[in-house]
Amino acid sequence: MTLPSKVRIFEVGARDGLQNEKQMVPAGIKVELIERLVDAGVKAIETGSFVSPKWVPQMADTAEVMEKISRRDDVTYAVLTPNMKGYEGAVASGADEIEIFSAASEKFNQRNINCSIAESLERFAPVTEAAKAAGIPYRASVSCALGSPFDEEITPEAVADVSKKLYDMGAYEVSIADTIGVGTPIRTKKVIEAVANVIPLEVIGVHFHDTYGQALANYLAALEMGISKLDSSVAGLGGCPYAPGATGNVATEDVVYMLDGMGIDSGIDLKKLVTTAWFISDFLDRAPVSSVARALKGKLG
Amino acid sequence: MTLPSKVRIFEVGARDGLQNEKQMVPAGIKVELIERLVDAGVKAIETGSFVSPKWVPQMADTAEVMEKISRRDDVTYAVLTPNMKGYEGAVASGADEIEIFSAASEKFNQRNINCSIAESLERFAPVTEAAKAAGIPYRASVSCALGSPFDEEITPEAVADVSKKLYDMGAYEVSIADTIGVGTPIRTKKVIEAVANVIPLEVIGVHFHDTYGQALANYLAALEMGISKLDSSVAGLGGCPYAPGATGNVATEDVVYMLDGMGIDSGIDLKKLVTTAWFISDFLDRAPVSSVARALKGKLG
Repeated sequence: MTLPSKVRIFEVGARDGLQNEKQMVPAGIKVELIERLVDAGVKAIETGSFVSPKWVPQMADTAEVMEKISRRDDVTYAVLTPNMKGYEGAVASGADEIEIFSAASEKFNQRNINCSIAESLERFAPVTEAAKAAGIPYRASVSCALGSPFDEEITPEAVADVSKKLYDMGAYEVSIADTIGVGTPIRTKKVIEAVANVIPLEVIGVHFHDTYGQALANYLAALEMGISKLDSSVAGLGGCPYAPGATGNVATEDVVYMLDGMGIDSGIDLKKLVTTAWFISDFLDRAPVSSVARALKGKLG
Repeated sequence: MTLPSKVRIFEVGARDGLQNEKQMVPAGIKVELIERLVDAGVKAIETGSFVSPKWVPQMADTAEVMEKISRRDDVTYAVLTPNMKGYEGAVASGADEIEIFSAASEKFNQRNINCSIAESLERFAPVTEAAKAAGIPYRASVSCALGSPFDEEITPEAVADVSKKLYDMGAYEVSIADTIGVGTPIRTKKVIEAVANVIPLEVIGVHFHDTYGQALANYLAALEMGISKLDSSVAGLGGCPYAPGATGNVATEDVVYMLDGMGIDSGIDLKKLVTTAWFISDFLDRAPVSSVARALKGKLG
């Protein structure tokens, strides 16, 4: 047990969370969401992505969002960039860091970004080279790290292999993502152990979905391994459109509640966070997918 | 880390789960629910309670339910009995074991059963004496073990104190209940540690609510302490009417999914369990409060 005393939450609600919303969310609402999250204490936030608006129309206004938010020096504003065109958009928008992603599953990679794992890494090479030259940090994500939607075994070694390649390409963080939410605590520990055998523990992040209700147990398992970089999504916004049945980013409120109870500092004010969860959920006209946000509604004084 | 290889799930859906349903559930549905759960592999099940039908009308037909279920020798059928009248009803119904409860909170005890903790123990004494004389095992529950709804601190020592008294009165199991679901993993471990200092670890059970989404993380923490007796409720049925805002027994499906993934044997067939969760939820005309039951709907072949 080497629990961290402090963690960094990477808040993904404004991008990963909103990207598949059918209802178009105006830039002004996204700006308010991001600013409220920052005001609640979020220090690292995904603000959008530079991808084809044909594929992800909800993110077509990322440049506008980036332009309109009041930036704070102590906050990292990150955007997702799958290719050079996206990278150039990200740089032009003034993003503090960029994100790339691959998967530990060949099948998932094919369906999600239409290429093999090896090809995805080659495709990212110009982006990562350019980012390095420009001094822009980037984080990398490994999808399907705890299981695949396509009836195949994902070994901890396969996750470690991709993680090492992404790290060797210069990623300052490699985020282990349970894209379909099937992970359980022992599996989680085994995968983290395998990855920590090939890259430093300090650069490993975790991004667990709550599809089967397991996210917090898995975060606890990760914390017990010494992991201190967690992704989550305000109000539990979002999921993954390409993974059948995969809904359920874990709600940041539920993660922060657990961390608060454990005396682990996330720097986030739970009350402001819950208010923000209800702000975006009211806009979307549904309740937050968050036990904490629902339990605390009307109790925040 | 001393994870058990095998656990006993005490299934509470048919009593704790249904007792506050406004819609009356006919005895025949309760009987089918219980028999389906047993067919899924449940070996210890709460079938009802012998309490005043004025207070809990939903449980008025427990004798009928007990009479109608096809009993199996390898299954323990338990009923809740707050007093001698209830005890007599339980014995007449052929219950294998009885349950009594107290709380680690004086305020909660007052509001819930209208007496002090000490008085509640005195009140139970004739019941436990009678059960001992008749050779009927009883389990005891300690409410509010991880927190109180009434703005008061519940110390681990207070939980240990009540637990020891209940154990000394002859309980074969003392179940630590997070009645309002506010517990987090470190607190959980501290309370279990305190209780294990005064009674054997093997007799400690846990009953955690998911009001703030923390139940599985807390069960993981308990498993890591060596606890192997867990309570849960099919479809996440039930909560606690006297604790403001307290909804949320954790769903047995979500617990079993985690255990299966960890290679911990619960003896329960997840597929049959999920089918049962949908059986009772369809009757109640709402979706199960279970991530697993919802994620697996239509995927069970």
